[in-house]
Amino acid sequence: MVDLENGVFMEQVEDLVERKRWPDLRDMLCLLEPADISAILSELPEDRLPLLYRLLPKELAAEVFVEMEPEEQELLIKSFSDTELKEVLEELYVDDTVDIIEEMPASVVKRILQHADPETRKSVNEILKYPEDSAGSIMTTEFVDLKRDMTVEDAFKRIRRTGVDKETINICYVTDTSRHLLGLVSIRTLLLADEEDIIEDIMETNVIFATTLEDKEDVAQDLSKYDFLAMPVVDKEGRLVGIVTIDDAIDVMEEEATEDFELMAAITPTDKPYLRTGVMETVRSRLPWLMLLMLSATLSGLVINSFEESLATYSVLIGFIPMLTGTGGNSGSQSSVAVIRGLSLNEIDFGDLFSVVWKECRVAVICGVLLACANFVKLMVVDRWLMQNPDLTIPVALVICLTLICTVFCAKVVGCMLPLLAEKVGLDPAVMASPFISTIVDVLSLLIYFAFAALLLGL
Amino acid sequence: MVDLENGVFMEQVEDLVERKRWPDLRDMLCLLEPADISAILSELPEDRLPLLYRLLPKELAAEVFVEMEPEEQELLIKSFSDTELKEVLEELYVDDTVDIIEEMPASVVKRILQHADPETRKSVNEILKYPEDSAGSIMTTEFVDLKRDMTVEDAFKRIRRTGVDKETINICYVTDTSRHLLGLVSIRTLLLADEEDIIEDIMETNVIFATTLEDKEDVAQDLSKYDFLAMPVVDKEGRLVGIVTIDDAIDVMEEEATEDFELMAAITPTDKPYLRTGVMETVRSRLPWLMLLMLSATLSGLVINSFEESLATYSVLIGFIPMLTGTGGNSGSQSSVAVIRGLSLNEIDFGDLFSVVWKECRVAVICGVLLACANFVKLMVVDRWLMQNPDLTIPVALVICLTLICTVFCAKVVGCMLPLLAEKVGLDPAVMASPFISTIVDVLSLLIYFAFAALLLGL
Repeated sequence: MVDLENGVFMEQVEDLVERKRWPDLRDMLCLLEPADISAILSELPEDRLPLLYRLLPKELAAEVFVEMEPEEQELLIKSFSDTELKEVLEELYVDDTVDIIEEMPASVVKRILQHADPETRKSVNEILKYPEDSAGSIMTTEFVDLKRDMTVEDAFKRIRRTGVDKETINICYVTDTSRHLLGLVSIRTLLLADEEDIIEDIMETNVIFATTLEDKEDVAQDLSKYDFLAMPVVDKEGRLVGIVTIDDAIDVMEEEATEDFELMAAITPTDKPYLRTGVMETVRSRLPWLMLLMLSATLSGLVINSFEESLATYSVLIGFIPMLTGTGGNSGSQSSVAVIRGLSLNEIDFGDLFSVVWKECRVAVICGVLLACANFVKLMVVDRWLMQNPDLTIPVALVICLTLICTVFCAKVVGCMLPLLAEKVGLDPAVMASPFISTIVDVLSLLIYFAFAALLLGL
Repeated sequence: MVDLENGVFMEQVEDLVERKRWPDLRDMLCLLEPADISAILSELPEDRLPLLYRLLPKELAAEVFVEMEPEEQELLIKSFSDTELKEVLEELYVDDTVDIIEEMPASVVKRILQHADPETRKSVNEILKYPEDSAGSIMTTEFVDLKRDMTVEDAFKRIRRTGVDKETINICYVTDTSRHLLGLVSIRTLLLADEEDIIEDIMETNVIFATTLEDKEDVAQDLSKYDFLAMPVVDKEGRLVGIVTIDDAIDVMEEEATEDFELMAAITPTDKPYLRTGVMETVRSRLPWLMLLMLSATLSGLVINSFEESLATYSVLIGFIPMLTGTGGNSGSQSSVAVIRGLSLNEIDFGDLFSVVWKECRVAVICGVLLACANFVKLMVVDRWLMQNPDLTIPVALVICLTLICTVFCAKVVGCMLPLLAEKVGLDPAVMASPFISTIVDVLSLLIYFAFAALLLGL
C-alpha cells in the first residue's frame, strides 16, 4: 500500500510531472485506488489535468472520473473530443452518469446525452425523472436478472455473459416475463448449490424491496438494518426497475448526517467539502440564519426592557442572566438533539410523543432540582460568604434557583417536542436544534426569572 | 413484504400467542427478516421470550439472536440448556459472538466460552484482546483464503468446501504459507475467469489493508471511500488475521455519528437507543455537563457584576446582552460544527489550521459587518423611531454594532480553532461544539461590549 499521508509520494508525482516522465507517472498512478488517483490529480495544476487524465488506461480512467469533484469533471468533459467522451460514458455505470449529469451545466448535459448510447440515455432520462430524494434517483438500472425456471448452471452462464457490466453480481434477482420481482438468489447460494438445481427451488421469496418514490434515506436505513448489499427497487406496478447498492446507501447516510449537523448548527447544507466551499458561498449558507436568529433575539431584549426598572433596583439579578439562559439553552438542546438523532435512526416516531415527553419531564425535574441545589450552595458559599456580596440575600438566591428548575423543565419539554412536531408537519427536525431552541428558551427563562422576582422580591 | 408499520401484523402475532397457536406463529415469523422478528419478539411479554425463540428454526434463531438487545440476549442465554447454548454458538459468526460477550456479565461470559468450540474460543479471545476502538475489535476471523498457485477451479472448490461458514465470500484473499497477505480476488473476477486460470495471474496485488490496532472509525471511512465490501486486517507482521465487513463498518459510522451528535449537545454518549435508556441513565449522561457549563457561566456573571455601576447608568445596554451573546454563540457554533464534521469525514486535518482560520476570518468579517449594518438599521428604525426609546442614542447603537462585529470575529476564530486543537492533543473535537463555545463566547462578547461602552460612552 502506498503511503499518501506523508507527502513524499506527492513530491515524486510532482517531480515526474515537472520532468515530463509520462510513462513512469502512468505506472506509478496505476498502482493506486481510483479515489487516491483523483485526490492526487486534484492537487496538481488545473491545466495539467486533461493531459494526466489521458495517461490512465480506459477502465481506470472512468473510475477515477467518478471520484472527481464536479468542477474537475466539467473541465475534463470540455477538453474531451467526442470520441473520448463516448469512451468514458461507455465505462460509467448508469447511476454514476446520472450523478455527474446532475452537477453539470445544461450545455455539458446536452453533450453527454448526445454521446451516450441509446440504452444508457434511456436509463439516465428515466432516473432523472425521479424526485431528488427518492430511491429512484440513486438506483442503478444495471443488475443481474434470472428466470425462475433456469438451472444454477444457466444462471452462471447468464452472469458470465452479462456480468461484466453489472455493478453488483453478489445478489441476482428473479423476475417473471413482465419483470415482476419474484425472489432473489445470492451468489453464495448459487455457488453452494448443485448445477442442476432450479432457481425457483433455491431462491428466497420473501424479498424486502423499496419503491422508486420512497425516501432514499429510508432505503439506506433499511439496507443497514437488514445488512443487505443491495436493495431491489420496484415501480408502482411491482416491476423491478433497479437496485440501490450499499456504497450509494453509505453515501446517502453520510450526506444526511452532514446535513443534520449543518442544520443543527444553523447552516444551510451544501454538498461541498469544507475547504472547497468559497468564502461567499459559506457566507450565503450562514448569514441568513444568523440574521434571523439575531432579529428574533429582539424578543428577549424586549422582555428585559420591560423589567428595566426592577433590574435597576435589584441590579444583582442582571449578572445571572447569562447563566440562566445558557443552562436553559443547553438543557433544551440536549433533549432536542437526542430526539433528532432518534428520529433519523428511525428509533422514534411521532407516535412516541407521549413517552418522549414523559421521559423528558422526569429527567428535567431531576436535573433541574440537582442543578438548583448545586447553584444554591454555590451562591451561598461563593457569592455571599467568600465574595461578601450583601445584595445576594436568601430570597434572591431562591428566585435564581426556582427559575433554574422551571427553565430546565420548560427547555427540555420544548426541546423534545419541537423536533417531533417538525417531523409531523414535514419539516426537517434537525432545524429544531440548539440555535432555534436557545432563542425560544432565552425568552422563556427571562419571563420565568422576572415572574419569580416579582413574586418573591415584590418588584 | 409484510407491512410492520401499521400494527395489524403485531395484533395478529399477539392473538396467536394468546391462543397458543405455536405452529401458525412459527410459520408467520419465518416469513420475516431477522431484524423484524427481533423487533416483534421484544414487543411481547418478556416471560414468553424463551418459548417463542425456541419456535424458530436453528439457523434463523441465531440470526434473530444477533439482532436482539443485550438484556434480551442475557435473558435467553440464562434460559438455555447447555446443549441449546452450544447450538446457538455454533451458528454465530465470531465477530457477533464477540459483540455479545462484550455486553454480558462475567458469569454469562464464562458460560459462553465454556460451550464454544475450541477454535471459536481461540478467535474470540484473540479479538477480545484488541483495544475497544481498534479494527481488531470489530473484525471477523472468518474469510476465504486462497493460495497463489491454485487454479480458478481449485478456488471454487475451496469456496464451496469452506464457504458455508464464511461471513462474506464476495472477496477472497490470497496468502502465502506463513499467512502474509499477497492479493485478493473478487468472486466476480473468479466467475468471469477461465477454470484453468491461475489465481496469481488474476489476483489484484495492490491491496489496501488495515492493521489490527488502527482506529475502527478510520477503517470504516476507508471502506466507504474505496467502495469496498470488506477490508482485510493484518497484524504487525503483515499476516492476514481477519476482515472488517461493510455491515460492521456501517454500524461503526452510525455509532460515531451518534456519538458526535451527543457530544456536540453536551451529552455523554451511550450505546442505547433513546427510548431504551432509563431516566436515571439519561440524567447521568446529561447532568455533569449541565453542571459544568452552569458553573462556568459564573465567569460571565462576574464580568457583568464588575460593570454593574455602568449598567445602572446606561440600563439600555442590558437589553442587548442576550442578542449579543446569542449571535456570538451561533456564529461560533457554525464554525466549530463545520470543522468538526470536516475532521470526522477526513476532509480536514491539523495541517489545514492556517487555511481554515484564514477562511473563517474572511467569512467572519463579511458576516459581522452585514449583521451590524442590519442591526444598526433595526435599532434606528424600530427602537429609536418606532418605539421612541430616548436612551438609544447613536453612540449606544455604535457600541452595540461594533461589539457585534468583534464578537462574530472572535467567535468564528475560536470556533474553528478549538476543534482542530482538540484533535491535535487527542481529545474528541466534537466536545468543542455549541455549548462549550457558547460559554467562552459569552465571556468574550461581554468583555468586548463593556470595552466599547467604556470607550464610546465614557463609562
